[in-house]
Amino acid sequence: MTVAEEERLARATINLITEPGDVRCLGLTRELGGVRFLEVLREQPDLRPEFLAAAGRLARAHPERVLEEAARREIRFVVPGDDEWPGSLDDLAGAGVLHARGEVPVGLWVRGPLRLDRLGPAVAVVGSRSSTSYGDEVAGEMAAILGAAGRTVVSGAAYGVDYAAHRGAVTAEGRTVAVLACGVDRAYPVAHAAMLDHLGRHHAIVSEAPPGSAPLRVRFLARNRLIAALTDGTVVVEAALRSGALNTASWADRLHRTVMAVPGQVTSAASEGAHELVRSGGATLVTRGEDVLELLGAPGEHLLDVRRAPDGPRDRLTIRARQVLDAVPVASPASAASVARVAGLGTEEVEQLLRGLALDGHVEHMPSGWRLGEEVRSTIDQ
Amino acid sequence: MTVAEEERLARATINLITEPGDVRCLGLTRELGGVRFLEVLREQPDLRPEFLAAAGRLARAHPERVLEEAARREIRFVVPGDDEWPGSLDDLAGAGVLHARGEVPVGLWVRGPLRLDRLGPAVAVVGSRSSTSYGDEVAGEMAAILGAAGRTVVSGAAYGVDYAAHRGAVTAEGRTVAVLACGVDRAYPVAHAAMLDHLGRHHAIVSEAPPGSAPLRVRFLARNRLIAALTDGTVVVEAALRSGALNTASWADRLHRTVMAVPGQVTSAASEGAHELVRSGGATLVTRGEDVLELLGAPGEHLLDVRRAPDGPRDRLTIRARQVLDAVPVASPASAASVARVAGLGTEEVEQLLRGLALDGHVEHMPSGWRLGEEVRSTIDQ
Repeated sequence: MTVAEEERLARATINLITEPGDVRCLGLTRELGGVRFLEVLREQPDLRPEFLAAAGRLARAHPERVLEEAARREIRFVVPGDDEWPGSLDDLAGAGVLHARGEVPVGLWVRGPLRLDRLGPAVAVVGSRSSTSYGDEVAGEMAAILGAAGRTVVSGAAYGVDYAAHRGAVTAEGRTVAVLACGVDRAYPVAHAAMLDHLGRHHAIVSEAPPGSAPLRVRFLARNRLIAALTDGTVVVEAALRSGALNTASWADRLHRTVMAVPGQVTSAASEGAHELVRSGGATLVTRGEDVLELLGAPGEHLLDVRRAPDGPRDRLTIRARQVLDAVPVASPASAASVARVAGLGTEEVEQLLRGLALDGHVEHMPSGWRLGEEVRSTIDQ
Repeated sequence: MTVAEEERLARATINLITEPGDVRCLGLTRELGGVRFLEVLREQPDLRPEFLAAAGRLARAHPERVLEEAARREIRFVVPGDDEWPGSLDDLAGAGVLHARGEVPVGLWVRGPLRLDRLGPAVAVVGSRSSTSYGDEVAGEMAAILGAAGRTVVSGAAYGVDYAAHRGAVTAEGRTVAVLACGVDRAYPVAHAAMLDHLGRHHAIVSEAPPGSAPLRVRFLARNRLIAALTDGTVVVEAALRSGALNTASWADRLHRTVMAVPGQVTSAASEGAHELVRSGGATLVTRGEDVLELLGAPGEHLLDVRRAPDGPRDRLTIRARQVLDAVPVASPASAASVARVAGLGTEEVEQLLRGLALDGHVEHMPSGWRLGEEVRSTIDQ
């Protein structure tokens, strides 16, 4: 068995006896390597209590069998050092709170043809499971634009925003990755079996938890850090104040990724989390995929102009003509002489200009004098 | 005639022969005083062309008659030096672009019992004339909260957001001020005659344009700077990309006032201007009146907590109980032993804790083992 194979087997073992995001065991594995950490678990006489649980599970762990079974179902176990290992995950080194989750995973279980070292620039599109139709629409539209622009979309597999994001990316024939809290061989929620099957055949499904693992709350928390770490930025589409998407956003922030949020109506509870992120300066407001591309693009790439309304008829006038137009009453007509007084110009010149303006409908000539044309009146947003 | 009366008469004259926001004439009046500037207009042999129009109108100006007529209709002309003059307007000194509008007005025409030196902390609530019902609802709600909190609401008199803002302030028995582009004696739009009449009897209506003046585009542009200058901050509720509200916002920014914007659905054109303001860093996102009070409050006043969801049942558990709860499957049940393995605790202890958790519905005991209770499942936003 080569050194690499030995290390992979050791890491598979550690993966089987620890929970995703176990800061202590994952941290030590990163520092010592899997083989050495296993030796410690097996041989150290006086193990610190936080390692006893893992050590206690060693007897029941059968990594060879699990790896074989996985391979048979075309599930691979990718570990640091593999060509496919996504270097972005190494940013998780040392990251995490003891009682929460964190650290670089010892390995990832992957299903599907999309290699993790070929994601290219990736964007997380996350949000509430109980999203509104508005949230689903925006998530799908945004993912489609990102996918069409060659960005890999990364999300969970939940109802609502996650599903809409994958759907949008697939529709635009972009790349998309689902990161699960359960085993990559499980369809959770069951209603998404068809989508997960599609991603497994054409894209990628990733999990830190071994095949067969059930979705546990603790695994969702650990999973969120992977979504943040695998991507250059996280877009929160709709998130209530208690949404897991905010957990993903705070991981993205901790990892110095770009955090973005989509606004909604202030009367919608589903947008409260996104609004709080923007209000507190924790996220940049984005309204469309192009905004995201601009924020994540290399300097000079995807630069957007400040959004302006298209030129109105007024913009094409000479300064002189505008001076006159600005002096024409909105509602009740005025004589050319009074317009001239307001504009501070000669009456003859003003009468000429008014006749010209009337031709394009800027002004209209009533029996009692001149006033703004209907179209212009409607653009005065007073 | 006292010096003050002479100066007031001079400024009334200048007001009658110039357009609101005439940067050159207003600027010189501020520097020389009204009396001296009038002398220049009357006596200087070689007037610069930009002053010829104003000088040309001198013959037709009858300030005494206008002031008398105004007084008869309980309209007062407030000038710098009067007790009622709002000092905040002096921030406009030197502000303005030649071809646009700007500067400190030579005086203001005011109708209504609310004195301009008694506005106290004031907030501009502005937005699109063609607002959505959502925008009207938010504007009214926000103005009501501001009014109830003792803030004076300032806006225009247009359809949509302006109207909703006054309505909200009045409903909350707060103070509100309408700043018009036409004379304070005119009802424009006509549909708002009743509202304007109410404001004229119980609040205040202000204009830089003399009584009887028609609403002209140039006067709306000049009017916007007054709304910004009279207030500590401007809230843009709904604004299309070409909305006059954005002009008010940029005046507020130029005058170092706080600029705020209310988000809406990204699919709504009526919110594009507000979103662009936030996206570009030109405005702070606000979702409710309390946010505005916090931003405008004196330091330490109206401090808001970061918005959190109310504590869930989970928050009231011991760390130990949470460890167990986190290890309980979301969907398909697991034995107490496997929960214990995941949690890294003893099976007996876990069984005890599970029974306790079941009592509050955190978990439920199925024939095949334990899983999360319905209520808890629904809070896992995966």
